[in-house]
Amino acid sequence: MRLRLDCAYDGTDFHGWAAQPSLRTVQGVLEDALARILRIERVAVTCAGRTDTGVHARGQVVHLDVEPEVLAAVPVRSAPDPVAALLRRLNGVLPDDVRVRAVTEAPDGFDARFSALWRRYAYRVADEPRLMDPLARHTVLSWPRVLDLDAMNTAAAALLGEHDFAAFCRRREGATTVRTLLELTWARDEAGLAVAHVRADAFCHTMVRALTGCLVAVGEGRRGVEWPAEVLRAEVRDPAVTVLRARGLTLEQVAYPDDAGLAARARESRVKRVRCG
Amino acid sequence: MRLRLDCAYDGTDFHGWAAQPSLRTVQGVLEDALARILRIERVAVTCAGRTDTGVHARGQVVHLDVEPEVLAAVPVRSAPDPVAALLRRLNGVLPDDVRVRAVTEAPDGFDARFSALWRRYAYRVADEPRLMDPLARHTVLSWPRVLDLDAMNTAAAALLGEHDFAAFCRRREGATTVRTLLELTWARDEAGLAVAHVRADAFCHTMVRALTGCLVAVGEGRRGVEWPAEVLRAEVRDPAVTVLRARGLTLEQVAYPDDAGLAARARESRVKRVRCG
Repeated sequence: MRLRLDCAYDGTDFHGWAAQPSLRTVQGVLEDALARILRIERVAVTCAGRTDTGVHARGQVVHLDVEPEVLAAVPVRSAPDPVAALLRRLNGVLPDDVRVRAVTEAPDGFDARFSALWRRYAYRVADEPRLMDPLARHTVLSWPRVLDLDAMNTAAAALLGEHDFAAFCRRREGATTVRTLLELTWARDEAGLAVAHVRADAFCHTMVRALTGCLVAVGEGRRGVEWPAEVLRAEVRDPAVTVLRARGLTLEQVAYPDDAGLAARARESRVKRVRCG
Repeated sequence: MRLRLDCAYDGTDFHGWAAQPSLRTVQGVLEDALARILRIERVAVTCAGRTDTGVHARGQVVHLDVEPEVLAAVPVRSAPDPVAALLRRLNGVLPDDVRVRAVTEAPDGFDARFSALWRRYAYRVADEPRLMDPLARHTVLSWPRVLDLDAMNTAAAALLGEHDFAAFCRRREGATTVRTLLELTWARDEAGLAVAHVRADAFCHTMVRALTGCLVAVGEGRRGVEWPAEVLRAEVRDPAVTVLRARGLTLEQVAYPDDAGLAARARESRVKRVRCG
């Protein structure tokens, strides 16, 4: 059987999501906790968005496959069933910078990575001293100049749609950098922070932080509103684009189709990735 | 001349506000930074709310008196004036768990402590696994049972007004524990957290955390809605009341009268404190 885990973590003290020998990673910590609770030697989890070092998540989605008799062996105690018992035990065993918010039995055809329709990230910037909140300092970037969100939104609109985002990505041999950018808007939140809402079918490495870095240059007046579209069209990495620091970035949400559409979506995503290398 | 500083801090790594020899306190860190920037030996600051160990602040207000020639000696560089230069330098010198959000010349009669009309605190609780956010773990208390906010609000209403809050305070020799509780309501925030909004003319030691701890016992069904009022009427510290952990508590706002009312309010507050010991 397949379980879906909804997770959140503070990325500050992690070397990103993906397990690496002798480094503290979210995947490593989560797999260790699961192996301990399920009393099996090795657990392999798959996530929707492989976050980089220092990047946070509120809406990470993960799946793992488990033998029903292994799950049934988790002591239920006061929980209503083994799935609820696993949720409680996980939050007891995990360090406090990772929480599992829900554990559910996944519907047929569900794959945390390949069934996803889109991923949504937020990038948060405090661009005035009065907005600086030491209670949020690990999740918000401080910027020394006030940003013009209207200019940034004008520039961002030209980046929407399906493009080769090579200019904003760290290239990986044999991997496509074609993505569909569904949303890229800047707005002030209730506290006044400048927040970029960035949504795409999927993202390549450093893409959100390079896109937002490019727009920040427009927002502070260092570049014109037409510059990000020019960078995009060049289709080669531009050293003039600043990749913003990881601390301001949070994976907020991953969306999936209705249960009936899960398997078809997973097939479609797999074909696209294979075709593109 | 008197300066007003609006400050925020993450209380996690501080032994509270008040300066103590060889302990890291917010007052100590702030006075050291000011002395360094103003190039004087000793600076004394006065705050509106002396927060306990581990308690946070978003809306702390502080004043200090400074000789005009000392302020004028702060290098202005690209800032418009010495007050703006002081703000910029402070945030350069202070550790990142304290920020100064504004520095202004205080109006005549302003006293951060005695001119204040009221202080407002928030106490935040995550009472379900789906609400647990590791990005907010230093400012939110995790509670293992779902809280009934309606019952808590019914109980809280009976505590409003002027009372001797001795039952909820750590007693200090010769100090009054009579306070006017102006607001005590629980509501869910946009994320779903249970948040207590607590507002009074002033608070005594542990008062907010004992009041909220008393109400949490009602919210989880361990005590009846009439219990907090009974505790209040007893006017002696009740060991059955749990003082909640500091991490969930934040000083959010301090309110002052219009400039014309500042001096009168300060006189009134001083008389009250002296009269009561």
